[in-house]
Amino acid sequence: MTKKVLVLPGDGIGPEIIAEAVKVLNVVNQRFDLGIELSEGLLGGAAVDATGLPLPESTLEAAKQADAILLGAVGGPKWDKVETAKRPERGLLGIRSGLKLFANLRPAILYPQLAHASTLKPEVVSGLDILIVRELTGGIYFGQPRGIRTLENGEKEGFNTYVYSESEIRRIAHVAFSLARQRSSRVCSIDKSNVLEVTVLWRDVMEEVAKEYPDVELSHMYVDNAAMQLVRAPKQFDVLVTGNMFGDILSDEAAMLTGSIGMLPSASLDINNKGMYEPCHGSAPDIAGQGIANPLATILSAAMMLRYTFNEGSAADAIEKAVSDVLDQNLRTADIWSEGMQKVGTQAMGDAVVAAL
Amino acid sequence: MTKKVLVLPGDGIGPEIIAEAVKVLNVVNQRFDLGIELSEGLLGGAAVDATGLPLPESTLEAAKQADAILLGAVGGPKWDKVETAKRPERGLLGIRSGLKLFANLRPAILYPQLAHASTLKPEVVSGLDILIVRELTGGIYFGQPRGIRTLENGEKEGFNTYVYSESEIRRIAHVAFSLARQRSSRVCSIDKSNVLEVTVLWRDVMEEVAKEYPDVELSHMYVDNAAMQLVRAPKQFDVLVTGNMFGDILSDEAAMLTGSIGMLPSASLDINNKGMYEPCHGSAPDIAGQGIANPLATILSAAMMLRYTFNEGSAADAIEKAVSDVLDQNLRTADIWSEGMQKVGTQAMGDAVVAAL
Ligand SMILES: CC(C)[C@H](C(=O)O)[C@@H](O)C(=O)O
Ligand SMILES: CC(C)[C@H](C(=O)O)[C@@H](O)C(=O)O
Repeated sequence: MTKKVLVLPGDGIGPEIIAEAVKVLNVVNQRFDLGIELSEGLLGGAAVDATGLPLPESTLEAAKQADAILLGAVGGPKWDKVETAKRPERGLLGIRSGLKLFANLRPAILYPQLAHASTLKPEVVSGLDILIVRELTGGIYFGQPRGIRTLENGEKEGFNTYVYSESEIRRIAHVAFSLARQRSSRVCSIDKSNVLEVTVLWRDVMEEVAKEYPDVELSHMYVDNAAMQLVRAPKQFDVLVTGNMFGDILSDEAAMLTGSIGMLPSASLDINNKGMYEPCHGSAPDIAGQGIANPLATILSAAMMLRYTFNEGSAADAIEKAVSDVLDQNLRTADIWSEGMQKVGTQAMGDAVVAAL
Repeated sequence: MTKKVLVLPGDGIGPEIIAEAVKVLNVVNQRFDLGIELSEGLLGGAAVDATGLPLPESTLEAAKQADAILLGAVGGPKWDKVETAKRPERGLLGIRSGLKLFANLRPAILYPQLAHASTLKPEVVSGLDILIVRELTGGIYFGQPRGIRTLENGEKEGFNTYVYSESEIRRIAHVAFSLARQRSSRVCSIDKSNVLEVTVLWRDVMEEVAKEYPDVELSHMYVDNAAMQLVRAPKQFDVLVTGNMFGDILSDEAAMLTGSIGMLPSASLDINNKGMYEPCHGSAPDIAGQGIANPLATILSAAMMLRYTFNEGSAADAIEKAVSDVLDQNLRTADIWSEGMQKVGTQAMGDAVVAAL
C-alpha cells in the first residue's frame, strides 16, 4: 500500500529545511520499505506569487488526496501588504479547516544536550516534556460573524466571534485524554471561565468527557494563570488542552521555554489521524536562502508523521535517535550553537542525520 | 481639599494586606498633609456573603463618589460554585466598567534585591522594567452578544464577542504613548492581525495615533510571538499596549518573569486619572488568615495612587523608597524569602515600612 505524502515547502527557509527532511524521509523509506510516495505543491506566499492565491484549488485537492502533508513554513514581510484574504497565513488556515485538522499537537521538550539554550534556570526546565493539545479548526479563528463595520456615528468597529459547540470540545477532549494515557495521565484544561461563557461550556464538557477516562487526572486553570505557571514551574504540566487562540499563545510560550524552538515539531490531525506536520518555528525570512536554518524540527516533524499517521513507530524512532546522535556529535546549527560546539549549515545537518541513520 | 479614598479589602488575604497599606497611607497622609479621608466598602466574595451581590449598589455609589479606590483582592474557592453573575470576579468587572476605568497599568519591575527570585537567568531579567498598558473596559470581556445557547440539533454552543471601536482603541493608544514619553519612548502594540479583523482595526488606529507622537517609536508584534519574546528577551520591551484579553495573559506572564509577583502594584484609570489601585497578585485563599502574606504590592499600589490620581509624587517616592529600604534591611515575607534573609509576617513587614518612612 503506497503512502501518499504531499510536500509543501512554503516560504522563507521552508524550501531549505524541507529539502533536508525529504532527504531523511527517502532514506527511511528505503530502509523500512515504507512505500512512501512524495509529491510537491504550492502554499502560502509562494502560491500567491505563482497563482495569486495562498491556497490554490489544486493544492487543496492534492492535500485531500494525500495521506499526510509535510509543510515547511509560510509567510514573510514580502506579503505583509497583501489584502487579508490573500495573505500566506490564510493558506495555512484554509488547509487546516478544509481538511478538518482539528487536533494540533505541540510538544515542548527540552533536549538534554541543549539545556543551556533556555533562558530559564536549568533546574526549572531540565527534563521538560509538555504536550500542548490545541483545538485548530474552531474558536475565534473561524467564528462568524467577523469583520470591520462602520457604526451609525461614523466610527469603525472591528469584531470577531469566539464560539465552540459541545461536539467540537468533546472531540478535542478525547484526543487530549487519549494522549495523556500514553504519558503521565494528567490533563490540565485551560480556559477563562470566570469571564467567558464559551469557556464555561468548554470546562463543563471537559468534566463530562473526563468521566470516560477515570485513570486520567483532569485539572483546570485560567489562561492568565497558565501563562504564569509556564514561567514559574513548567514541569508541573503533562498534557495541556485548550482552544485555538489560547493554544496559539501558550504553545509558543511553552516552546520558547526550551530555548531551542528550532527543534520542535508539530502535528495537526483529523479524526482519522490523517495529518499535516510542520516545525513550530516560522519561515524566518531574515535568514532565508543563507543555508544556515535548522532543519531538525522539520526532520522531527517527518518522524511524527510516521508515528501518528502511518503507525510506523520504528521508523520514527530511528529518525529521532539519529537526531539525538547528531546532537551528541556536538553538531549545531547557528540557532542552537554554543561555545565548544561545531557549527554546521542546513545541508550539513541534514547529511549528518542521514549518516547517523 | 480632601481626597476621598474608598478602601475595598475584598477576600482571602485582601483584608490583611489592605490593613498594612492603610497603616502606611495614614503615616504619609500626616507627614505630607495630604488630606486623605478613608472609608471602607464591600466587594467580591465578602459582598456576596453580606448582601448576595458581588458589587452592591452602595459600593458602586461610594466608588463613584470617591477620588480613588484601594482594592485588596477578590475571589476564592468558597464562591466557585456560585452562579456566574454573582461570582466575586463580577464585582471587579462591574466596578471597572461602571467607573470607566479603561486604562490598566501593570508594571513588571525586577527589584535588584530580589533578582534571584526569578526562574529566568539573571542576565535575561536583571534590570527588567516593562509597563503593560491593558485596555480594561472593552474587548471580549464585555462584548455582546455572549452566552450559551442550544442549537437546532440539540447541542449547546458557547459564544463571546471580541469587539473594539476606533474610539476605544484611540483612547488607550494615547495613554500608552503618553506614558512611553516618560520612559524610553518605545511602544510595542500587540495584536493578532494576521487572523482577527478586530485587531486589524487595532493596528490601524495605533498607526494613526502614533503620528501625534513622532518622538515615540511604535512597533507591532503578534500575541503568540510576544508570549515567546517575553521569555526569550523581555528587556527588549518598554511599553506594551494591548486589548483586555491579551493584556490579561501577557501581564501575568510578564509579572512572573520577576519571580516576585508579591511586589507588583497596578492601576486602573479613567479618562481623568481617577483610579482603582490593587496588587497584581490575587486573593491567595490558601494562605489567608495566617498573617504571612506579602503586603508590599498593596503598599506600592497606594504609592501609585498618590502619584497618578493625586499628583503627590514626593509622597509616592517616600513610600517606594521605604519599601526599597526594608528590602535592603533583608526583611522578606515567605513568598520572597531566600537563604540568609530574615523572614517576617504581614504586620511586621507593614511596620517595617512605616519605620523606614
Ligand atoms: C501563522 C498563524 C496564522 C498561525 C496561527 O495563529 O495559528 C501560527 O501562529 C501558528 O501557531 O501556527
Ligand atoms: C479576576 C479576573 C476577572 C481578572 C481579569 O481577568 O481581568 C484578573 O485576572 C485580572 O487580571 O485582574
